[in-house]
Amino acid sequence: MKEKPGAMNLAQALFAPRSVALVGASGDEAKNTARPQRYLLKHGYDGNIAPINPSRSEVLGLKSYRSVKETPFSIDHAFIMVEDVEGALEDCGRKGVPVASVFSDGFADAGPEGMARQNRLVARARELGVRLLGPNSMGMINLPGRVPLTVNAILEMDALPAGAASIVSQSGTMLGTVLSRGAARGLGFSKLVSVGNEADLGVGELVELLARDPETKLILLFLETVRDAASLAAGARAAHAAGKPVVAYKLGRSKLGERLARSHTGALAGEDAALEAYFRDCGIARVDMLETLIEIGPMLAGRRPPDLSHTPRVSVVTTTGGGAASVVDRLGMFGIETATPGSDAPITDLTMGKKSASYGAVVGELLDFPGCDAVLAVVGSSAQFHPQHAVGPIIEASRRRGKPLAVFMTPQADQSLALLAQAGVAAFRTPEACADAFQAYFSWKTPRKIPEESPTEWPKDIPAKGKLTEAQALTLFASLGVPTVESAIVRAPDYAHSLPYPVALKILSAEVAHKSDVGGVILNIASRQEFESRAKSLAKKDEPLLVQRMAAGLAEAIIGYRDDPVAGPLVLAGAGGILAELYNDVVLRVAPVDEAEALEMVAQVKGFAVLRGYRGLPVGDLQALARAIAAMSRLALIEGRPVREAEANPLIVKRDGAAAVDALVVMKEE
Amino acid sequence: MKEKPGAMNLAQALFAPRSVALVGASGDEAKNTARPQRYLLKHGYDGNIAPINPSRSEVLGLKSYRSVKETPFSIDHAFIMVEDVEGALEDCGRKGVPVASVFSDGFADAGPEGMARQNRLVARARELGVRLLGPNSMGMINLPGRVPLTVNAILEMDALPAGAASIVSQSGTMLGTVLSRGAARGLGFSKLVSVGNEADLGVGELVELLARDPETKLILLFLETVRDAASLAAGARAAHAAGKPVVAYKLGRSKLGERLARSHTGALAGEDAALEAYFRDCGIARVDMLETLIEIGPMLAGRRPPDLSHTPRVSVVTTTGGGAASVVDRLGMFGIETATPGSDAPITDLTMGKKSASYGAVVGELLDFPGCDAVLAVVGSSAQFHPQHAVGPIIEASRRRGKPLAVFMTPQADQSLALLAQAGVAAFRTPEACADAFQAYFSWKTPRKIPEESPTEWPKDIPAKGKLTEAQALTLFASLGVPTVESAIVRAPDYAHSLPYPVALKILSAEVAHKSDVGGVILNIASRQEFESRAKSLAKKDEPLLVQRMAAGLAEAIIGYRDDPVAGPLVLAGAGGILAELYNDVVLRVAPVDEAEALEMVAQVKGFAVLRGYRGLPVGDLQALARAIAAMSRLALIEGRPVREAEANPLIVKRDGAAAVDALVVMKEE
Repeated sequence: MKEKPGAMNLAQALFAPRSVALVGASGDEAKNTARPQRYLLKHGYDGNIAPINPSRSEVLGLKSYRSVKETPFSIDHAFIMVEDVEGALEDCGRKGVPVASVFSDGFADAGPEGMARQNRLVARARELGVRLLGPNSMGMINLPGRVPLTVNAILEMDALPAGAASIVSQSGTMLGTVLSRGAARGLGFSKLVSVGNEADLGVGELVELLARDPETKLILLFLETVRDAASLAAGARAAHAAGKPVVAYKLGRSKLGERLARSHTGALAGEDAALEAYFRDCGIARVDMLETLIEIGPMLAGRRPPDLSHTPRVSVVTTTGGGAASVVDRLGMFGIETATPGSDAPITDLTMGKKSASYGAVVGELLDFPGCDAVLAVVGSSAQFHPQHAVGPIIEASRRRGKPLAVFMTPQADQSLALLAQAGVAAFRTPEACADAFQAYFSWKTPRKIPEESPTEWPKDIPAKGKLTEAQALTLFASLGVPTVESAIVRAPDYAHSLPYPVALKILSAEVAHKSDVGGVILNIASRQEFESRAKSLAKKDEPLLVQRMAAGLAEAIIGYRDDPVAGPLVLAGAGGILAELYNDVVLRVAPVDEAEALEMVAQVKGFAVLRGYRGLPVGDLQALARAIAAMSRLALIEGRPVREAEANPLIVKRDGAAAVDALVVMKEE
Repeated sequence: MKEKPGAMNLAQALFAPRSVALVGASGDEAKNTARPQRYLLKHGYDGNIAPINPSRSEVLGLKSYRSVKETPFSIDHAFIMVEDVEGALEDCGRKGVPVASVFSDGFADAGPEGMARQNRLVARARELGVRLLGPNSMGMINLPGRVPLTVNAILEMDALPAGAASIVSQSGTMLGTVLSRGAARGLGFSKLVSVGNEADLGVGELVELLARDPETKLILLFLETVRDAASLAAGARAAHAAGKPVVAYKLGRSKLGERLARSHTGALAGEDAALEAYFRDCGIARVDMLETLIEIGPMLAGRRPPDLSHTPRVSVVTTTGGGAASVVDRLGMFGIETATPGSDAPITDLTMGKKSASYGAVVGELLDFPGCDAVLAVVGSSAQFHPQHAVGPIIEASRRRGKPLAVFMTPQADQSLALLAQAGVAAFRTPEACADAFQAYFSWKTPRKIPEESPTEWPKDIPAKGKLTEAQALTLFASLGVPTVESAIVRAPDYAHSLPYPVALKILSAEVAHKSDVGGVILNIASRQEFESRAKSLAKKDEPLLVQRMAAGLAEAIIGYRDDPVAGPLVLAGAGGILAELYNDVVLRVAPVDEAEALEMVAQVKGFAVLRGYRGLPVGDLQALARAIAAMSRLALIEGRPVREAEANPLIVKRDGAAAVDALVVMKEE
């Protein structure tokens, strides 16, 4: 990928500044605004520190300055804690400061007025050439570089271990969560960034910077929303290219969570299913539990997505049946299976009588076993009192690497957790996070290659904005390659058409989206005679009507397209009738998809069982269904992406072929 | 409830023996069999200890004996660690020892031969009047009483806090898990029992003993299976009557987990959905995550099931938006809502600038707020460094009690966890366990009063064993009060009947369960003429046939009954057609149910939306459906419960009424 101009400088100024200005540094040690200076000194920052405080000449023992401009050395990174952020920004601009982190809030986090203030701030920062982190950011912590440029109280801790995982977080508190929980068990981190409102530097650009950071081997994300999906996708692809896994924990999975995220971030939360499709598309692994984000690092670092085409299989060794069961039971809930070399037992259960050598030998055997994709080692009480019994041999055996290896220990076992962390072996405190890590790993996909398809043409006879009639929607679908039922437009006075009976008759108004709700659809018209009388009664003021051949098939499907404001263009396939809605039986993917990916989608819709020969039923034309989905998804390739939403519901699937019956298209510009 | 004879003595001998015999006590400190003696001495057991070792006169400083019989004092509780368990049992019998815990394995845990050995052991123990814990038990730990009669290595710890929660576990390792994890944060326990194979003393009887134990306020269960559902139900009801919540963590939720539980315990694992219904019925709260079992204690102790009739609402106060969101998002996934006094904001978000007094005031306000059912307090970094800021005020405010209160702290905060534990406030290490505790609390039901219904009569004209024909099954259903479609049996040569056309015709063989699979069903016969020719071709050797009036309605349902080998009698309701199977859209309850409970079941079946006026569809007779379910469930009241399985599939639900169309009954004795 192309290097952005100045990107290396940006990374250095952001993560490893040779000098910092602390704008609004307090002389009162107890204040939050005194923290960055205290923390920089406490943790051994070796660059220049310039406290900026117009009313003092000294701050907590350091010479201070009235403004950034007045500092006698250049400033790589300013940390702004004052209310007059705008003034501080001007000051930074005058000094030529390349990056400013803004702790102050009252911007997008504070309603429409704050949003306007933020927009003005960003515009001015662009003019001044100052990149912004925040506002409402807790700052940045670079542990190996000893740059704790933050107000996060976690830096009160005396020692924080450095490691290879970096984290970008939309919650500033979470930096402390991750650091303190990691530190308690010897898990260290590299860069930790609180992005705040992402007015300028966003999650995506930070991921891209970290993808190039030689100290970062793994990128963790704590997300409440996705503010710039294209940028994050680019960042994730860059990280993949650099061999660095990206793992996300994202809130807003429930409606309540979405609502909270919206109220908390001031941003659209995005439908979770859409973002799930998006993460998959750009190769981001997703964990379900917060602690998994902290624990999964050693399991994924240095690995590529497994992209398995078979059911994932884990081999399990344990010294405690109940402990192993607590993980394995959950693996089963994720559809993961177990495999044991030379045995049909679900796991290898070593009783506590066996010697430690045998534990290590079994782990080694499982890591070499071609019948499994990953290994789980469960340790009981010895993890607490005798790490040499099982934990030591696990560490020994882990040196042969190969497959992912995870350790779950049933007791409180801080020393063993630290030993494993030090050895780079993934260890989990809870059976649930352990199972979650396996599901995240197995669901993790290589970023999809962006298809280099020719752009799709918009049909000439259809307006590219405004409301489309159903006939126009059907024409658009047909132009994409979505099969449609035979249709014709009929007009007063004689409503002539050449379709065979039975037919259906619909009003054609673009103003009415749900025609059957207003009595605008008549089905199963059997004869010309019935047709004429029905047409005359249906047509208001001699409006034209839509006539369609009645279609019958094996099952109904719904296929759709949506240009999601958060996740971007998506294609949807689901069971027809009420199933999609009642059982949420739909599958979403980032559009466009090719036929192979559409077939994968079809395979995941439960209701399509009736098309797969379920209970001796005839088999439907799944290939035709997949072609229709792929065709629909090409709406994403039309220049300017004028369509907001499109849906064929139902699309009738037959033994041979398929046909969209009802068509709806909503343009972005109505 | 009635006191079992000798039960108080059993409790004393089991939990608080004045003297113990350690059968097979080793003089080698490093051996597992030396542990009980070491632990008893280390933790201050003040009763008599008799090591039993035929080859020594002294074991690790204590006088030892060649047999239990030879001890000069009476023995309340023997702990058997030798291979010759049978010999040790005889020895106990001769001495009049009331309880023996058997650590040795090689019984039901070791295949059919072991099972036979176990059966012999139990039979002999009954003859001798010795109650057995185990075999394959890790023993019993009584912390307040200082009786660590166990081989579990957790007792290597110097100090283990005592508390009010007792635990009964099917995994011996889990005693150490619970104790060590609890101890690390100041959460103590009372009695901990490893039940092993439950050859004699089972989970149910232990729950009953703990229900009467004055030191136990809460009973926790770690289950891999349920071996005696009736006994556990009785124990749970006794605990409820004594005001002691029972909380279960049960494995075997997935097929893989079931298989592992079976291979590990040698017992039937039981279908999870059946056990879920069973737990609900007898008032056991169920947690999904292992750590919740440890953490939930203070939230439930002293409480009764909430039995809410509205959507549960939690009020939330936090110093960190992201931290609160990590819990609230999951609450939303469980269908729990939030409520904020005087505001439509989802939560009360206190920024870190506010004073500690305001945090406490808000918690107090929420605890008093009538618009919520429970309170969640989330604390950020202050929990780690400044417990006085938020954790202190929470503890203050918690004194007013009232509603359940849970605390989630985002950082590693051991000191705050201990402070909260000491104050009896529930605190959670992970957002997931915290949300899990809320769902467990809100789903927790008062044990259903066992209905005092008159037993249901078995119809006289139907055999009470063997295979039933569909006509007999329909007669049985009708006798219970399940509405059935009009039917008649027709015979050669003229196949006369008086049902109006159209009708359906079915073969009547009791040997064929799935008649349509073998072409044994003809639907929609429109006339007498067609009927006769169809009947003649269908009937083999002039067998009688079943004729039914064709029924039409708004939707199909499936209702069923099953006498589950693990969970006991159950009634089932589900969406008809393929929905029940494809989407697992069924609801199970312990049978019998009354009409009100059946209506609750109906409300939980998603597919019945089509009967509830979904999208303007006509409303079905849900009351008739509920009556049919209640009637079907009365199979549980027939003396001897001769029916293994029964199913009306479909049961047609109409605008007015319902009718079972296909009927299947499987007797226990075929």
